[in-house]
Amino acid sequence: MALWSILKVRVRASLRNFQRPLTTIASRVDERVRVRLGEVVGSGNVSSSLAVREQHGRDESFHACKPPDVVVWPENTAQVRQLARICYDHSVPMVPYGTGTGIEGGVVAEEGGVCFDLSRMTDIVDLHEEDLDVTVQPGVTRVALNTHLRHTGLWFPVDPGADASLCGMAATSASGTHTTRYGSMRENVANLEVVLADGRLLHTAGEGRHTRKTSAGYNLTNLFVGSEGTLGIITSATLRLFPQPEAVASAVCPMPSVTAAGECTLQLLRSGVPLARIELLDDVMMDACNRYKGLDYAVQPTLFLEFHGTPASVQEQIRTAEEVLSGYGAGQLRWALAASERARLWEARHQAYYAARALRPGSVGYVTDVCVPISKLPEVITTTKEDLIQSRLTGPIAGHVGDGNFHCILAFSEHGEQERQRITEFCHRLVTRALAVGGTCTGEHGVGVGKRGYLLDEVGETGLEVMRQLKRALDPKGLMNPGKVV
Amino acid sequence: MALWSILKVRVRASLRNFQRPLTTIASRVDERVRVRLGEVVGSGNVSSSLAVREQHGRDESFHACKPPDVVVWPENTAQVRQLARICYDHSVPMVPYGTGTGIEGGVVAEEGGVCFDLSRMTDIVDLHEEDLDVTVQPGVTRVALNTHLRHTGLWFPVDPGADASLCGMAATSASGTHTTRYGSMRENVANLEVVLADGRLLHTAGEGRHTRKTSAGYNLTNLFVGSEGTLGIITSATLRLFPQPEAVASAVCPMPSVTAAGECTLQLLRSGVPLARIELLDDVMMDACNRYKGLDYAVQPTLFLEFHGTPASVQEQIRTAEEVLSGYGAGQLRWALAASERARLWEARHQAYYAARALRPGSVGYVTDVCVPISKLPEVITTTKEDLIQSRLTGPIAGHVGDGNFHCILAFSEHGEQERQRITEFCHRLVTRALAVGGTCTGEHGVGVGKRGYLLDEVGETGLEVMRQLKRALDPKGLMNPGKVV
Repeated sequence: MALWSILKVRVRASLRNFQRPLTTIASRVDERVRVRLGEVVGSGNVSSSLAVREQHGRDESFHACKPPDVVVWPENTAQVRQLARICYDHSVPMVPYGTGTGIEGGVVAEEGGVCFDLSRMTDIVDLHEEDLDVTVQPGVTRVALNTHLRHTGLWFPVDPGADASLCGMAATSASGTHTTRYGSMRENVANLEVVLADGRLLHTAGEGRHTRKTSAGYNLTNLFVGSEGTLGIITSATLRLFPQPEAVASAVCPMPSVTAAGECTLQLLRSGVPLARIELLDDVMMDACNRYKGLDYAVQPTLFLEFHGTPASVQEQIRTAEEVLSGYGAGQLRWALAASERARLWEARHQAYYAARALRPGSVGYVTDVCVPISKLPEVITTTKEDLIQSRLTGPIAGHVGDGNFHCILAFSEHGEQERQRITEFCHRLVTRALAVGGTCTGEHGVGVGKRGYLLDEVGETGLEVMRQLKRALDPKGLMNPGKVV
Repeated sequence: MALWSILKVRVRASLRNFQRPLTTIASRVDERVRVRLGEVVGSGNVSSSLAVREQHGRDESFHACKPPDVVVWPENTAQVRQLARICYDHSVPMVPYGTGTGIEGGVVAEEGGVCFDLSRMTDIVDLHEEDLDVTVQPGVTRVALNTHLRHTGLWFPVDPGADASLCGMAATSASGTHTTRYGSMRENVANLEVVLADGRLLHTAGEGRHTRKTSAGYNLTNLFVGSEGTLGIITSATLRLFPQPEAVASAVCPMPSVTAAGECTLQLLRSGVPLARIELLDDVMMDACNRYKGLDYAVQPTLFLEFHGTPASVQEQIRTAEEVLSGYGAGQLRWALAASERARLWEARHQAYYAARALRPGSVGYVTDVCVPISKLPEVITTTKEDLIQSRLTGPIAGHVGDGNFHCILAFSEHGEQERQRITEFCHRLVTRALAVGGTCTGEHGVGVGKRGYLLDEVGETGLEVMRQLKRALDPKGLMNPGKVV
């Protein structure tokens, strides 16, 4: 098949993932199953209403909504196990649902079935301040945990932007702005409680265990981190905590070009400055933020930096950073030490999604996500910007440049079929570009339904086959969040 | 069954792992297989000599030697694949061998078969200085890599003590003295090339990919890290590198008690000091080191600390550490900034194993390894020291106290059957003690044959069954390093 034909097939396959008309799926959840589910959680905690189902059949992305047949609200792990067993006995698909803040359609009920809404399981089960860890149920969000921790001097740093549930963040292998310094969910989950397809209860590192490290058998914890509900339902997560930094400083720094910003980031990483955050917003993104929030930043590629440490070490990091930045033609830096001022400074970054959409009033947004070796970032971003222009698309860029990870926030009209097709083709070229330089099709959003078509290219035939072997071993009936990842 | 009976059965089972007489294993590697192996690597690179086989049938521990039937020396991945395919076709066990520096019998050929000695694959395949990563073949050791990196300003920090092969360290999920600051192998492997049982070649993160993060499908990399050769043979590893610290300072600090040392460590961790190393040696260990190397350290529980950073930040870390330490009754600190002086200071720690054995001239050593939540460490070490005295055993303690991980270095006569039994019983109680407080039976040595009996207690029935399901999925014939881990 000629390259162009292959591309067309791929693009067509990817297009299918976008906003398909809401089809009526033949329900496999019959009245008998519904009654049994109600016996576990109470009939008031089982809903088949279309509004509720539609709300649970999509996330914050533009992937087509596919509602589950029924939504249940368990209140504890024992109920999740009983519900899972009923689904297993009746061969009904199970889709876990946290806050619905995903971006690759992880909660879309591809084959209907039962949606497990875990938002009522909100206990912070065990806080071990001395051991710097905590165990949380799946209804506990990132912000809720950090609010709870505020007076302990500890915090959980993984921050994907959205106020996602922490177990959901574990399920999608989330990361975000603090990864360079503190790691992603992969590095910060010590144990998971998981209900398997047949209702068995698994503690990935053993029940109640919360050590800083272990080499006892296979690393089940990191098999379930990033498994996106396809191997089991996470019902609690034990997370590593960090001491709140004594001092924090933020800076916003305009750069002459994306290339200069990228090379400067490499130099900062090489110099050993323990960057807490380093984000890159391109000129289009800065313009969007200025317009959206009435700010007056230079419309240039801009680095947003943050430093954590003691007051003296933060001062030293600032000095080193300024020295490195000036060597790459950085413009005037704006520094902020006070919390309120830092918040104001970071406002542009935090509002990126809405600012991007405001560029096109009435538009909807789709946030892509690729990650490449750090040295390839300037080249890939530059080519991508050219591609956006040629494709006549609005897509400001914001990236976790310290990890080689960046997003295009595509704003487009919900009703423009041609524009949507240009976006799909653009996203395909973007992923292809990332894969060609040793990158990944998804740095932190997961595979869901949006990136399924690229996993084969990324991990190869053997890689995908091994993933499928693992899936079959743990979920032989294929009931756990079917149609996702593998 | 009464508790005592269970204990006796357990102890007897564990005892069987100790120095069994060398049995002649019915060879499953017949002449036909031997010829085919020779066709791949050349007949000179296939050995059935008893001396060679015995050398490959044990590691640095006291676990009984069980020689493989034959040893082969492949020189590249293609050969490893062909050899694996021959073994697979003839249902012959495969045991990978790196440097033989393991401590839980990971290379013991429980069921004979073919030992893959990978020491001739010594290429440093790809060094990406800008991306801070490198890919190495299985014959590359930790020291060899860091020697190679010396002039790049980068280094690989995971340091288990021995000059182990890096792929072997990945296979056993090794860690060591720098884990508190830089993480273990789990956090520092970005990709693995693995030959599966049937000869298929897997790249756990996709061929040639070396991003700082990914959320593309199941985390196969971390399934193979710590799999101890039971799922496949690691033929290359892509590792994360770090900038060499600009300044390094070390200190040795006598403490009034193990409890004070443990509590002081917790306080240092809470205070946010980015400790590069924090090691605890108990009074017996300090005495052993003094005797062995003619040193004059106080015979007290002693903390060995190391700080990395800029000169100014190291000075600040030193000041904070001194303040915290003095609050816990620390004695006179010895500081060292120069490399040679630091080496002298750390000499005691590095020689711990030989110093411990020198306490009993002619003795052999067995190093146990457990890890507990950090806050439980003082209590567990204190009880363990009492147990050692009551058991009339020589077992100085050295630990990575910042991770809650510690070792007893048991020195005993090779010929004393009663003493060996006391050691086995002691080790059993030690593991039981660790598990009872939420700990693990092995923090960094792996399961091998030594800790097999404890995995069920640690991860539970479902945990062990899930591990076995994964093993069966990837190695249905049970050929990969059989008798280990699960």
